[in-house]
Amino acid sequence: MTQPVTQPVQPVQPARVGRVGRQRGRPPGRSNTRQAVLDAARQVFAEHGYQQASLRAIAAGAGVDAGMVRHFFGDKAGLFRAAMELPVDPAQVLPALLAPGVDGLGERVVRFFLSVWEEPASRGPFLTLIRSVSGHEESAAMFREFVTDQVLVRLAAAIDRPNARFRATLVGSQLVGMAMVRYVVRVEPLASAPVDQVVAAVAPTVQRYLTGDIDEAAGR
Amino acid sequence: MTQPVTQPVQPVQPARVGRVGRQRGRPPGRSNTRQAVLDAARQVFAEHGYQQASLRAIAAGAGVDAGMVRHFFGDKAGLFRAAMELPVDPAQVLPALLAPGVDGLGERVVRFFLSVWEEPASRGPFLTLIRSVSGHEESAAMFREFVTDQVLVRLAAAIDRPNARFRATLVGSQLVGMAMVRYVVRVEPLASAPVDQVVAAVAPTVQRYLTGDIDEAAGR
Repeated sequence: MTQPVTQPVQPVQPARVGRVGRQRGRPPGRSNTRQAVLDAARQVFAEHGYQQASLRAIAAGAGVDAGMVRHFFGDKAGLFRAAMELPVDPAQVLPALLAPGVDGLGERVVRFFLSVWEEPASRGPFLTLIRSVSGHEESAAMFREFVTDQVLVRLAAAIDRPNARFRATLVGSQLVGMAMVRYVVRVEPLASAPVDQVVAAVAPTVQRYLTGDIDEAAGR
Repeated sequence: MTQPVTQPVQPVQPARVGRVGRQRGRPPGRSNTRQAVLDAARQVFAEHGYQQASLRAIAAGAGVDAGMVRHFFGDKAGLFRAAMELPVDPAQVLPALLAPGVDGLGERVVRFFLSVWEEPASRGPFLTLIRSVSGHEESAAMFREFVTDQVLVRLAAAIDRPNARFRATLVGSQLVGMAMVRYVVRVEPLASAPVDQVVAAVAPTVQRYLTGDIDEAAGR
């Protein structure tokens, strides 16, 4: 009976209009092509999800060949990040966080995650992302596939423990919730707590999810 | 330069149209009045936030006196819950969770939170709530004030420890993040993990936030 009047938000499709004019000195054909590929990518990702989308279909949608798409954006993950304006490249960041080993990994992960959100330039795209995945099933599906493919699988492989994928999603749950309370809904005192205080509180949680005992009898 | 085309969602204002007709046997004046109060409440809460909204202003907006509003909804918290269709009353739930003491409180909190989300009838309103607070600053402000007043203050008083309010927001961060990953974005394997497995993994986090050492050197 009840019909929420809340409107679903659109999938993340940041407008690129206006950017073209900024790329002075480049032949106009280049930025037009880049723009056409990004537009096609957003449409194909939204329609088919991340896994099912192919560079070939996106190239065809933009009227170019797949080699041109690779030339501009590398692989499918790179194209997805460009199309969604994701400020972080998991393929770069994760190896750097993982390189020193699992010792202290919880703290490094929490500190990195907070550093991205504390930066206004990257906070905006992430806020848009949270709005989009909360409000739109297509966006949720797209990002679920991207995050699984680009983040969870890598993290799970690195921690190399029983239930590694489950552990990786637990880490995600604490990080996403921290972002929701601190940066989206901005509930005090977590919203204004110094980064070091948040790291001290949250890093042991993430470390336990990564490497600790997660099957123990709960609630002690 | 970039203008995200993502549309902000409307604040939570579940339509009540159609409910009136279901209340057979009651004089039509009663349900019309109730409806008018709910409409006025949603408007006043959205405009002034939860803290600043007064029963008197809401009553005036509905063309009734404040006694009538109390008759229907009790206090401001009750009216807010009815207007937003919140399926849980913190004033009822928190004392029940807290009654056995802080021992095992983390497990009871996580189990209760999951039980509400596992129930389709209450999952819908919570999904609407998460969409609304993510997409709309007015909604975020309203719920920030309601949650602080009705949940965090009570929980902080009950745990009676240094940084009690900070601890309460940390608990909220883990619970909200669990809901986002398991029920909103539905990332596997957390999305399909049995409730007992999730409780075993997450309850110790919540228990530590409530009563453990949250200032320890992080990252071991």
